Amino acid sequence: MSDATIEGFKAERERLNEIVMKYSGLNIKRFYNLDSQVYREGVLPARTKELLGLVASLVLRCDDCVKYHIIQCSEQGVTSEELEEALAVGVVVGGSITIPHLRRALQDWDELQSDNESE
Amino acid sequence: MSDATIEGFKAERERLNEIVMKYSGLNIKRFYNLDSQVYREGVLPARTKELLGLVASLVLRCDDCVKYHIIQCSEQGVTSEELEEALAVGVVVGGSITIPHLRRALQDWDELQSDNESE
Amino acid sequence: MSDATIEGFKAERERLNEIVMKYSGLNIKRFYNLDSQVYREGVLPARTKELLGLVASLVLRCDDCVKYHIIQCSEQGVTSEELEEALAVGVVVGGSITIPHLRRALQDWDELQSDNESE
Amino acid sequence: MSDATIEGFKAERERLNEIVMKYSGLNIKRFYNLDSQVYREGVLPARTKELLGLVASLVLRCDDCVKYHIIQCSEQGVTSEELEEALAVGVVVGGSITIPHLRRALQDWDELQSDNESE
Amino acid sequence: MSDATIEGFKAERERLNEIVMKYSGLNIKRFYNLDSQVYREGVLPARTKELLGLVASLVLRCDDCVKYHIIQCSEQGVTSEELEEALAVGVVVGGSITIPHLRRALQDWDELQSDNESE
Amino acid sequence: MSDATIEGFKAERERLNEIVMKYSGLNIKRFYNLDSQVYREGVLPARTKELLGLVASLVLRCDDCVKYHIIQCSEQGVTSEELEEALAVGVVVGGSITIPHLRRALQDWDELQSDNESE
Repeated sequence: MSDATIEGFKAERERLNEIVMKYSGLNIKRFYNLDSQVYREGVLPARTKELLGLVASLVLRCDDCVKYHIIQCSEQGVTSEELEEALAVGVVVGGSITIPHLRRALQDWDELQSDNESE
Repeated sequence: MSDATIEGFKAERERLNEIVMKYSGLNIKRFYNLDSQVYREGVLPARTKELLGLVASLVLRCDDCVKYHIIQCSEQGVTSEELEEALAVGVVVGGSITIPHLRRALQDWDELQSDNESE
Repeated sequence: MSDATIEGFKAERERLNEIVMKYSGLNIKRFYNLDSQVYREGVLPARTKELLGLVASLVLRCDDCVKYHIIQCSEQGVTSEELEEALAVGVVVGGSITIPHLRRALQDWDELQSDNESE
Repeated sequence: MSDATIEGFKAERERLNEIVMKYSGLNIKRFYNLDSQVYREGVLPARTKELLGLVASLVLRCDDCVKYHIIQCSEQGVTSEELEEALAVGVVVGGSITIPHLRRALQDWDELQSDNESE
Repeated sequence: MSDATIEGFKAERERLNEIVMKYSGLNIKRFYNLDSQVYREGVLPARTKELLGLVASLVLRCDDCVKYHIIQCSEQGVTSEELEEALAVGVVVGGSITIPHLRRALQDWDELQSDNESE
Repeated sequence: MSDATIEGFKAERERLNEIVMKYSGLNIKRFYNLDSQVYREGVLPARTKELLGLVASLVLRCDDCVKYHIIQCSEQGVTSEELEEALAVGVVVGGSITIPHLRRALQDWDELQSDNESE
């Protein structure tokens, strides 16, 4: 039932984004806007786009980005089996150097699954 | 009707893979095998997996890998609109440094579309 | 007086950008727009921004991007001594893996200097 | 007035550099030396070189390196507006994968600004 | 005599690998297997392979991977002088962006040396 | 007996290095010097260091660097079996994104082996 890690991550992310907005000019704001637009439902479903964002984040090895997309995938109703197949593509493309990130990704996923079950 | 680039790429890739097999031991052969397994139809459709491979290749900026997945996407019946949305995720995640690869990806796609129309 | 490489690069880049625009939706077009905005003269001079773009491209090892910023630096009146100091930062940050790109960057710069002298 | 994070970072960095020196031979020592030389005032001002180091570190996504250059930029009198324009180049070149690092960079900057104001 | 960091790392790694196995299908399991095969004694000694894994991890800047190979190098009887020469190759190839990882690598090494001496 | 590719590569590399030296100040020259020092025979044999350089270049996916170290490995008497085991480490660490570079590496190696046999 503990979702401290996930909730803590969301709160910290929001706090830091406020600092970004405090210093940002028009271009960084436009980039932030664009960054949310590309994941919107389109001819590709939003859940497919979240999987694309997840795999891109995994092969580029960004923990924060992986965690964010893991949360989004969970909210979009991605199943554990679908997630595993997407992560397998990422691990094979990106190599063993991605494994520490895979571990943390699946730990987050496991936490989110426990939360869902206990609701 | 010219598909010289695409066909030439496929032939060269096959020629070089033969050299790889000439020198490879069991581990590299296993890796090659695994690399084909992860794109097989599963709970995620093969075409979704090709889009995952494409976006991973774009953000890691590997022209040969991008070209390979562009061809696979075309063979899997991905539409131009779907491809564009996947590439948009890749460009935003990976930044302007991916743009030269985006250009070459869409040139290959354009060639494949022309080939399809003229058949 | 030969600037075949540089001129050929510019023409090919323009040709491929037309293919990108043919397939792009709003988000990729917005990204292209943003990519030109961030190099505009601001509180930092445009030439400083080109040096930032150059060093970022060098450490990320993108030949096309390096070549583009080398041309822009030349057009902005960056001197050979300034360019060398910026590239030295890039080589030390990015390591010997950047050296092949350094070589091609300075070959392009050398060609541009010859063109300028012969005008 | 709290500069715990920044001061803690500096102390830890110094402590670890002593361990590096304990084990290093001539080549790593030369590299360390070179790494400080390239940021020295030259035909390009030291502050411009710090901005180059910052943007290179941002696109390569190294938190420690970003933090170090943020501190140096502050000591060199870079303004918030100049910093923002440099970071905007980095974010557009490096993509959304740099955003977690941008957040932490601006948090450090914000802390340094508060310290300066309270002096 | 404190090996809390190293032991804690090993325990956490094992705990997370169990979560990975809980969700993994055949392909990720095969990748894990392959990842252990390539470091086995062969025509190249296992210790040379660990140095290869270490340098690859350093230039790709993965702290967990570096730490893992530092431990393996210690267990394989690599000397401090050999380690230093391998790391020097990594630092020169990968640039100053690897230095924060070099620092943490040598801190782990230093801890392992102290443990060995006190045994 | 054809070693056109390898010989052409060496000649072009030398030509470009002359352009680098024409524009370089002390720091880039020092970096070049350091880059040759770290591969010198030491407590680790030169051939082990070349394998380290090769695997680092493979995982960072730099064709020119891979080709250079393939040539050096050949000159240092590395066997095909040793090379294969080192490359297998690189492919597993770096993932399928390294495969296009593996192909070109083994093509160069194959050319060098043919040259050696025909001497």
